[in-house]
Amino acid sequence: MSAAAKAVGHEELGRFIREILVKYGASEPDAAIVAQGLVWANLRGSDGHGVSRLPRYVKLLQRGEIDAMAQPRVCFALIRHTTHTGAIGRYAQWIAERGCAAVLMGAGPTLMAYHGARVASMATSPIAIAVPSGNGPIALDMATSTISNGKILQARATGGALPPGTVLTAAGEPTTDAKEAEILLPLGGPKGSGLAFMFEMLASVLAAAPIQAPALGPQKRTRHTGNTAMLAIDIETFRPLIDFKTDADALAAVVKALPRQTGFDEILLPGERGNRTETVRRKSGIPIPAKLWEELGSVAKETGVKMPAHT
Amino acid sequence: MSAAAKAVGHEELGRFIREILVKYGASEPDAAIVAQGLVWANLRGSDGHGVSRLPRYVKLLQRGEIDAMAQPRVCFALIRHTTHTGAIGRYAQWIAERGCAAVLMGAGPTLMAYHGARVASMATSPIAIAVPSGNGPIALDMATSTISNGKILQARATGGALPPGTVLTAAGEPTTDAKEAEILLPLGGPKGSGLAFMFEMLASVLAAAPIQAPALGPQKRTRHTGNTAMLAIDIETFRPLIDFKTDADALAAVVKALPRQTGFDEILLPGERGNRTETVRRKSGIPIPAKLWEELGSVAKETGVKMPAHT
Repeated sequence: MSAAAKAVGHEELGRFIREILVKYGASEPDAAIVAQGLVWANLRGSDGHGVSRLPRYVKLLQRGEIDAMAQPRVCFALIRHTTHTGAIGRYAQWIAERGCAAVLMGAGPTLMAYHGARVASMATSPIAIAVPSGNGPIALDMATSTISNGKILQARATGGALPPGTVLTAAGEPTTDAKEAEILLPLGGPKGSGLAFMFEMLASVLAAAPIQAPALGPQKRTRHTGNTAMLAIDIETFRPLIDFKTDADALAAVVKALPRQTGFDEILLPGERGNRTETVRRKSGIPIPAKLWEELGSVAKETGVKMPAHT
Repeated sequence: MSAAAKAVGHEELGRFIREILVKYGASEPDAAIVAQGLVWANLRGSDGHGVSRLPRYVKLLQRGEIDAMAQPRVCFALIRHTTHTGAIGRYAQWIAERGCAAVLMGAGPTLMAYHGARVASMATSPIAIAVPSGNGPIALDMATSTISNGKILQARATGGALPPGTVLTAAGEPTTDAKEAEILLPLGGPKGSGLAFMFEMLASVLAAAPIQAPALGPQKRTRHTGNTAMLAIDIETFRPLIDFKTDADALAAVVKALPRQTGFDEILLPGERGNRTETVRRKSGIPIPAKLWEELGSVAKETGVKMPAHT
């Protein structure tokens, strides 16, 4: 936990977020879902997808860019105009908790270069895949960029250099200086940007809600928005859930037991690091850095919601 | 085209492959589908997925590891026990040619290290995504490994070094020497191996046909096989196909027109390089290296099938 951070219990943090969202017109059940998603990310150590998003959500609610009363219609499902989609790993995990396999592919704001381009031209389009297992869901949740924005912010704070090949400057030149980093590079060049391009097709173009073409065209129509293509597969359609879990556990067990490369203490399953952070943070609380604490204070003051208790 | 290679017309090559497969018990329509897939890969320059596979297919047919009479059952679809799946990009493109979006995720033989492991422990599990556009399908087709086996073979032939971080030796040590390369490394470390792990869950465990756990367990039960999870989405379920194509074309157009990084002459769409190779090879023929020509000669002799005409 960084110096000058508060530690807040996850239930108390959820209470705070719910109350704020209700003040801005969300229903109690909808507010609870959003709060769960933010707290889930904080618990797992993905703080960039946690309560740090709340001040921005409030601004978007105030401007009418988030519709607090929107109702989803569910089928294969394409989910469009989500403003900010949140951590899609949470939705994948939620689906896996209900005995289904989940595949989610996201589209969003223009932050990453298409392979070979010197400007931001794709979203960092994440993919999340989750399945049930005997030890709870196993969930992969990854961006198609080489590194995350969070790592850049971290390197800026600590003064560390970024690995080569991960970012460009605003002028489109390669750099390893976090202070100059403006544009993310795609994972594996054409592979990462190819995935981002196809996710824009599947989640945005298919839903008649394109993001990148309007943003990159002559009119530069940008808007903070997101779309997601989501697939939930009922395991029982194919085989008994208990048998699936048995084989999933067998796969996880052999992977954990693999002989390791030099420098590796342990083989980690998708989501395993986050599971551990979650266990710790459920007990010791979620660290909130001083600057975010101030921002939350402003939102609390504006809405009359009691600040979260902390240690 | 390498020295001592034959150039064979694609129709003639298809004739040759069809006749061979029929000799080994495939029906004419099934043989035609397999031949189309192999020739398609050759036309697009993915020679590793082309007719170079035929001698091996013949061995597997002789041993009974390929069932030439197998009949698929189609739904969401899980396709299991495919022996060798072929270039999944072809199936994705085929679906997109019929007005659908396609997502295919493959599982197969154990060739790639799980992140941190010093042994081959995952498949190079490919993902293919294709959508229709005004200019025909746009199809991404990529492995979750950093480089392909084909690139290693090429580097061995030319004596060139491999990029660092792409392969391990048989002993699990990093190398850049193509002659020592035995184990592929995953794209982006935990991201590539996370995808491969989850594709094994979705394509193999869900289909009750696990590959990796039996291969890595104490009994090392390996078998040349593959499974694929396949999703076909009818575009018209969501919006008129013509509108989808208009927006897909708009996205492709803005991406092609992006300002480029130093050293890039052109921005390429997913599959665009293969499209161009296909145009050339449809006219000038498909190059068959001398060694493969010999292997095909043995198969032709064994079956009494006439060798393909060539220039």
